[in-house]
Amino acid sequence: TAYEITTAEHGGTHLDAPRHFVEGRQTADQIPLEHLIGPAIVVRVSATAEKNSDYQISVKDLDAWEENYGPIPDGAIVLFDTGFAKYYPDRNRYMGTDERGPDAVAKLHFPGIHPDAARHLAGRGIHAVGIDTPSIDYGQSKKFMTHRILFERNIPGFENLANLDQLPEQGAFVVALPMKIEGGSGGPLRIVAFVPDGRTED
Amino acid sequence: TAYEITTAEHGGTHLDAPRHFVEGRQTADQIPLEHLIGPAIVVRVSATAEKNSDYQISVKDLDAWEENYGPIPDGAIVLFDTGFAKYYPDRNRYMGTDERGPDAVAKLHFPGIHPDAARHLAGRGIHAVGIDTPSIDYGQSKKFMTHRILFERNIPGFENLANLDQLPEQGAFVVALPMKIEGGSGGPLRIVAFVPDGRTED
Repeated sequence: TAYEITTAEHGGTHLDAPRHFVEGRQTADQIPLEHLIGPAIVVRVSATAEKNSDYQISVKDLDAWEENYGPIPDGAIVLFDTGFAKYYPDRNRYMGTDERGPDAVAKLHFPGIHPDAARHLAGRGIHAVGIDTPSIDYGQSKKFMTHRILFERNIPGFENLANLDQLPEQGAFVVALPMKIEGGSGGPLRIVAFVPDGRTED
Repeated sequence: TAYEITTAEHGGTHLDAPRHFVEGRQTADQIPLEHLIGPAIVVRVSATAEKNSDYQISVKDLDAWEENYGPIPDGAIVLFDTGFAKYYPDRNRYMGTDERGPDAVAKLHFPGIHPDAARHLAGRGIHAVGIDTPSIDYGQSKKFMTHRILFERNIPGFENLANLDQLPEQGAFVVALPMKIEGGSGGPLRIVAFVPDGRTED
């Protein structure tokens, strides 16, 4: 069974290429297919994020996953299910504000990945991360350290994902094909996940 | 092994959605994943097309494939390797002219799929077609009958493909993820083909 994990509206789901934050790192067209295609794991933090829209996914969350399923595999595409996809595209619920422009930045509230967890993941040799919020750094981030830590290591990010609740914690296989924009710091992304038949219902 | 069969330059490889030629048929965002993802067959006509840039792929070419490999499977994504990918992006060699605009249309010369072959394929219940030229109708086409025949049946077309010479005649699995443009008659396409290890060299 193939699940589309692109958001319904075009332009929502996108790639952040390493070059977006780190000079000298890969642009959208330079990311090798191995970092866009491969086995996925899903770390679910929706119960916690439901109660705290400033939640930062922690090393403890990763430890909990590993206790249940074993070490995060080398080369994994790590997807975070915060449950926020269900708010999309209601900006107030999804992002914390429906204002736009520079003054709105301070009012952004949505979960992201804590920099310590990003360092932990980088140490595991993962190939990419994805999340069902607008950014891999949480809404209140000012330094975007998670972007910097991962992009320094050429680990790209997929943002505004959908339907992660349809995927098992392990066993899915992801194909993420961003538009191949020469020199691009990111771009529109279409992404699907294959789940072995029988593992989930159609 | 995953082969990228998108052309190197962005914007080259694209989807033609059924709506592009037939009212009431699917737009880019409406094409179901099953028509974008599935087993691929490759019909190679490069030896013939090398000698005739107006070549139209015929029912005989399909018959020859079926004699070697059995019936074209229901749901196949049928890819045509004309050998023209090697000329891309040299417009003179690839399209027959480097002129642009309305007057250039009459000077287009590149291979395509003959309408009779298109009808034959539609009868086989295929899911999509792809070709390594600018169009599924040949350059000299005036009525674009192959587009109309296939699109009438909601069979989309992938154009300006690359690296089809890397794929086996059968056994590859294709994932084609066009940009999900609401109401779009087409759009940029990124497409990869998985080939079982051992079948071809890395």
